[in-house]
Amino acid sequence: MTVGIVGAGQLGRMLALAGYPLGLDFLFLDRTADTPGAQVAPSLLGEFTDPTLLRELATRSEVLSFDWENISVEALRAATRGLRTRIAPPLTALATAQDRKLEKQLFDRLGIPTTRYACVESLPQLHAAVQKIGLPGVLKIRRMGYDGKGQKVLRKPSDIAAAWAQLGGVPLLYEEFIRFDYEVSAIGVRSRNGQIALYPLSRNYHHDGILRLTLAPWSNPALARQAHRQLRLLLAHFRYVGVLAAEFFVRDGRLVANEIAPRVHNSGHWTIEGAVTSQFENHLRAILGLPLGSTAALGHSAMINLIGSIPPRRQLLAEADVHLHDYGKQPRPGRKVGHMTVLAESARQRDMRARALLRRYYRRLPAIP
Amino acid sequence: MTVGIVGAGQLGRMLALAGYPLGLDFLFLDRTADTPGAQVAPSLLGEFTDPTLLRELATRSEVLSFDWENISVEALRAATRGLRTRIAPPLTALATAQDRKLEKQLFDRLGIPTTRYACVESLPQLHAAVQKIGLPGVLKIRRMGYDGKGQKVLRKPSDIAAAWAQLGGVPLLYEEFIRFDYEVSAIGVRSRNGQIALYPLSRNYHHDGILRLTLAPWSNPALARQAHRQLRLLLAHFRYVGVLAAEFFVRDGRLVANEIAPRVHNSGHWTIEGAVTSQFENHLRAILGLPLGSTAALGHSAMINLIGSIPPRRQLLAEADVHLHDYGKQPRPGRKVGHMTVLAESARQRDMRARALLRRYYRRLPAIP
Repeated sequence: MTVGIVGAGQLGRMLALAGYPLGLDFLFLDRTADTPGAQVAPSLLGEFTDPTLLRELATRSEVLSFDWENISVEALRAATRGLRTRIAPPLTALATAQDRKLEKQLFDRLGIPTTRYACVESLPQLHAAVQKIGLPGVLKIRRMGYDGKGQKVLRKPSDIAAAWAQLGGVPLLYEEFIRFDYEVSAIGVRSRNGQIALYPLSRNYHHDGILRLTLAPWSNPALARQAHRQLRLLLAHFRYVGVLAAEFFVRDGRLVANEIAPRVHNSGHWTIEGAVTSQFENHLRAILGLPLGSTAALGHSAMINLIGSIPPRRQLLAEADVHLHDYGKQPRPGRKVGHMTVLAESARQRDMRARALLRRYYRRLPAIP
Repeated sequence: MTVGIVGAGQLGRMLALAGYPLGLDFLFLDRTADTPGAQVAPSLLGEFTDPTLLRELATRSEVLSFDWENISVEALRAATRGLRTRIAPPLTALATAQDRKLEKQLFDRLGIPTTRYACVESLPQLHAAVQKIGLPGVLKIRRMGYDGKGQKVLRKPSDIAAAWAQLGGVPLLYEEFIRFDYEVSAIGVRSRNGQIALYPLSRNYHHDGILRLTLAPWSNPALARQAHRQLRLLLAHFRYVGVLAAEFFVRDGRLVANEIAPRVHNSGHWTIEGAVTSQFENHLRAILGLPLGSTAALGHSAMINLIGSIPPRRQLLAEADVHLHDYGKQPRPGRKVGHMTVLAESARQRDMRARALLRRYYRRLPAIP
């Protein structure tokens, strides 16, 4: 049974590695040859929108998924037209996650608190938006942003013109810049048959717009209840199939929804070692209509992203508790090339261990409590 | 960095799946195309003794290993002649494990208690051996046996001629048939730099010569001390590199060595979920001279082999705690096609869970305590 995956990055690679033990086969489509996914499974080489390749991928697959959301909903839909191949997660969820406006509107519609925002398509509209929302604020491209790319913080009136000059020309969204206490994410999975399983909450530390550290489970029952209620609303709304991640700001003990990702998520990598069933395996189970595995945590996990390059392997592996995940990528500044996870017996031990590892392997540290 | 593996069975497959997160590449050599290994990594197709293919494998690999011990020591040695490619585990260990006589002699030399035995190359020698060792006994081919194949139990004098007719013509070994209480195995790993790590003892249940169930850790400190002392002697003797497994009978609280396997071992599959670092990852770390990972157990594991065919996937995965490992093999009676592992919080819970799973998925049950 073959799972076709559009995009062969680290997420696709980890999906394949989680799926082989289930007896699944994989086929990727990506633009370059030596992708993380292509190193572990066959891959079609070409543009994500190439109708012939997408059709081939769909024809050879039982189900089509994606490891990257900046792909064409229309091209995916066309590729499966007339075929029995299903697409999961649903394209409506993909389309919503691709457009910050649709995403915000959905949050509003479902009663999920989020930041105030205004859509911006011209410099006068930006001025009006700043007038309405206030400063500071964040100007973001509505589509195709990731890892902090395509956004600009506005702190004073004179930043408006510069931000417009940098980002203008495509649909934008101006959003209040909220002072939050910290960030958490919630990951849930819904199977084709409607079964839902939710992972414990995780706390995330970003730096320069890139996730650096995830601590999970993040034990805060009140927040977990809020997050899981909202995640259930989202899963139900889309009649979702697969893994869905939602990122939140936490302010004064309340959640403020930031964004959703209709796929396995970086803040869920800890589940490979830290949960009974990983997000990758559960995504596959869900999209194939198989029963979901337990999402219970095993111990207390810290996941640290390796950015730019992998530290010397010998040194990393000398940390007897470190689980290394090397994505097989060429080093490049700012690039996610791998991650490592450690498990501890208590949250306190985990936090100490995370601090020690960050000191050793990071020049610029996220501030851990 | 490419690891070449002679044999692309389930052990090779699980080595590759454990090695990808370390950033390693794999290349197999096997006789057929759709092997468990070839489904997850590139594979050369041909005989295990083909000098051209072995040479290609050696040339393209940093280190050469094997997932199967019935291969030619001479062919392997020739393949790496003049190359910097190392072979691990060492060929002396492979040669010893391939020949029950050498294995027994080594046990004797290292003071490791084992069964009494006599070498047999003719019918008169078999009669003499039965005279010396007594009945019942087991007649075994000295080389190329596995999973109970190539052996015959002799219970009464009239069995002698029939056993000879069936197995005679190749070097044989006649061994006392010991009444043992149960079987355990010990798995150790030694790195190129001499670092040693030992996994907790496991208890094994065979049926028709095939391993069916492993419970680990098997908590018996006195036995663990004996087993680990003997494993250390073996690792030191060979200046071993990689994972080494030793199987023992337990009789009256004492170990009687049965055999060794110079490779990752079926009785160590529980380490994928049940230990901090799996035997597969530690084998790779060892043969690449990387620091070893912790061999500590996480909870209490039961590993059940799936023989002949995989039960319906939907049913298996509905057991929320089951970790399925499907080797991607065609069903065939008596064939190891996969395994499943469950982890429990106590040995008692584990044993209950193992019993329940065996009842559900096995028609013929090993007797569990």
